[in-house]
Amino acid sequence: MIPFDLIEELSIQTPSKILLLVMDGLGGLPRPETGLTELATATKPNLDALARASICGLSVPVAPGITPGSGPAHLALFGYDPITCLVGRGVLSALGIGFPLEPTDLAARINFATVNDEGIVTDRRAGRISTETNRQLVGLLRQIRVPGVEIFVETESMHRAVVVFRGPDLSARITDTDPQRTGVPPLPVTPLDPAAQHTANLVNQFIAAAARALKSHDPANDVLMRGFAKYPHLPRFGELYKLRAAVVATYPMYRGLGRLVGMDVLPTGETFADEVATVRENWANYDFVFLHYKYTDTAGEDGDFMAKVDAIEDVDRSLPALLALVPDVVAVTGDHSTPSVLRSHGWQPVPFMLRSRYEIPDSVEHFTERACQQGTLGRFPALQVMLMLLGNALKLEKYGA
Amino acid sequence: MIPFDLIEELSIQTPSKILLLVMDGLGGLPRPETGLTELATATKPNLDALARASICGLSVPVAPGITPGSGPAHLALFGYDPITCLVGRGVLSALGIGFPLEPTDLAARINFATVNDEGIVTDRRAGRISTETNRQLVGLLRQIRVPGVEIFVETESMHRAVVVFRGPDLSARITDTDPQRTGVPPLPVTPLDPAAQHTANLVNQFIAAAARALKSHDPANDVLMRGFAKYPHLPRFGELYKLRAAVVATYPMYRGLGRLVGMDVLPTGETFADEVATVRENWANYDFVFLHYKYTDTAGEDGDFMAKVDAIEDVDRSLPALLALVPDVVAVTGDHSTPSVLRSHGWQPVPFMLRSRYEIPDSVEHFTERACQQGTLGRFPALQVMLMLLGNALKLEKYGA
Repeated sequence: MIPFDLIEELSIQTPSKILLLVMDGLGGLPRPETGLTELATATKPNLDALARASICGLSVPVAPGITPGSGPAHLALFGYDPITCLVGRGVLSALGIGFPLEPTDLAARINFATVNDEGIVTDRRAGRISTETNRQLVGLLRQIRVPGVEIFVETESMHRAVVVFRGPDLSARITDTDPQRTGVPPLPVTPLDPAAQHTANLVNQFIAAAARALKSHDPANDVLMRGFAKYPHLPRFGELYKLRAAVVATYPMYRGLGRLVGMDVLPTGETFADEVATVRENWANYDFVFLHYKYTDTAGEDGDFMAKVDAIEDVDRSLPALLALVPDVVAVTGDHSTPSVLRSHGWQPVPFMLRSRYEIPDSVEHFTERACQQGTLGRFPALQVMLMLLGNALKLEKYGA
Repeated sequence: MIPFDLIEELSIQTPSKILLLVMDGLGGLPRPETGLTELATATKPNLDALARASICGLSVPVAPGITPGSGPAHLALFGYDPITCLVGRGVLSALGIGFPLEPTDLAARINFATVNDEGIVTDRRAGRISTETNRQLVGLLRQIRVPGVEIFVETESMHRAVVVFRGPDLSARITDTDPQRTGVPPLPVTPLDPAAQHTANLVNQFIAAAARALKSHDPANDVLMRGFAKYPHLPRFGELYKLRAAVVATYPMYRGLGRLVGMDVLPTGETFADEVATVRENWANYDFVFLHYKYTDTAGEDGDFMAKVDAIEDVDRSLPALLALVPDVVAVTGDHSTPSVLRSHGWQPVPFMLRSRYEIPDSVEHFTERACQQGTLGRFPALQVMLMLLGNALKLEKYGA
């Protein structure tokens, strides 16, 4: 790939405008009854018309066969190598609840868990307690004080919570306490290098206090912690690409991923129509808008084929209002596939289209997996998307003489 | 590429089963008389039917334009970067004769050669002596004793033999003695770093003794040695991919390459039908079977176009018995091309197809070079094959949150 310093050297600010629409989990698989995927089943005249004016292909989020989480999949679309620029579990959890992480904060995922009288883990998820119970227990954990560090505890949902430690010299080079199986005690936090000993001590104190606080609250009588992570130092959109960039997303994690790379977060509503309205209101102020649509993924994760079809059609209905903004470059894709038949993220490559007056449209007639197979871009790394967007927006100067 | 430690972290053991059929030297070139390649000439209804149910493409073994040997070509298919994970000539020769190499052994290729009275090499292959003569001369070399090291000498064929040194602290960082041309004397073995001085001394003693032993055996009156190598430390299939893997191959080198990466070697017969029977008998015990078919390459190397066509048809006839095992994922490809018109390995990309219930078949109708050009995978690195196989077998967990 092109190194960051070269991209920063080549990129220039211009008035041209880029719209990147990410339909989360877009790629699908055929339903056995019809042999058609969600995209091929949906009635979507506007997406298909855009495909006819675009160059198309299939985007590979990380590598063939690799199923990405939302973090790596979006980082790749934003131009950050998803292998070397991994965002840790703790940071993603914090982003997911909209926690305003600071660069020196240390974040981790907490699972409420059950241990028996011998201290052996008997349920790593504490019987999947309700979110309401979670909130009460988080109230107890918030009373824990450890000298030298400020501690924030936040509910995610059910047995999941987030803890953030704020203080000097915190290190993420410490081990998880979650043993990843039952029948054994939780692991102590141990430092992975000597400079992390201080952090390990602080976290172990927190854990001991948490166990005391939860002792009588079966089944959630202990905590397991994993994914200790700090905010990654990624070059930001403003410096790297010279973009005034904004994110429009209904879910906190995607707003957080945008913020992570230097996008302004624009408040919006719950529906795609709300999101489109937000884009329209703010269009004049930005060169780049990342518009995230969540419900294709939600439906795929639920295994609800027709709900995913509906979600695609919902996007299609509002697409004309987006295109009426006349972006110089517009791309529509997903961060990864979420085939309804899999009920989970998949490794399958993702339909992609890019419209620009400076590309020759290929012969793709419909925005589907099969049609995009025949597109001029073939299978290509998602990591190349930003360069294609910038080049087509005339935002990259000539490389070399 | 994805680093080994990440693959090891993501891979999980599951009951799903993968079959990788490698038809050695599969790719070909058109015969001028018909304009058709060996694959396009062969009648192979079963391979074509499989192609219609598969995603297809052309696999690039090492890099465009690079003609690989069997070692790099197979390592790439097994997921080991063929540039950084090179298996030395000596080790490949030892694997090729089925020698049970140990991790500390040092192996090298021997060529019997002719030197004149002035010690000048006049024939680097000793007139290509018969394999029978080779065996007699190997008998002489086996009588050589060098203090501090155990020595094994084995016939390959004609002028080629293998020597293996077994002892403490042997280093492969020593130079070849083969000058690669006639009219000059053989080169002395010299160490490439100081720690290899001990090994260089031992090998030079062996060479001096060999010259004395062969003195009266014109034209094979000396030895040239090259490709000093030790068994490479490759992560093994069991740990890396969590696979119980087996190799079925009629030739020792391919069994050796399988053993090298941790596959069980299953005894089998001489024909493809024998090999298929072996796969069927052992199918229940493995998650991954590497089935190697040699005769496509043999025919290509012989320049025997129709023999290669016959070899392809032979595979086609037994394919239904293989597919009746209902592997969750099946891929058919070659390790490299061996076009009959070249009479040797070539750099041309290799037809590839992969069938899985989790991929959308492309529009490829026939398993040929031309048809696979149109496949959804395009030209892709052979190094990606294992990830595609594992992903489709649901043997890779999600990467990142």
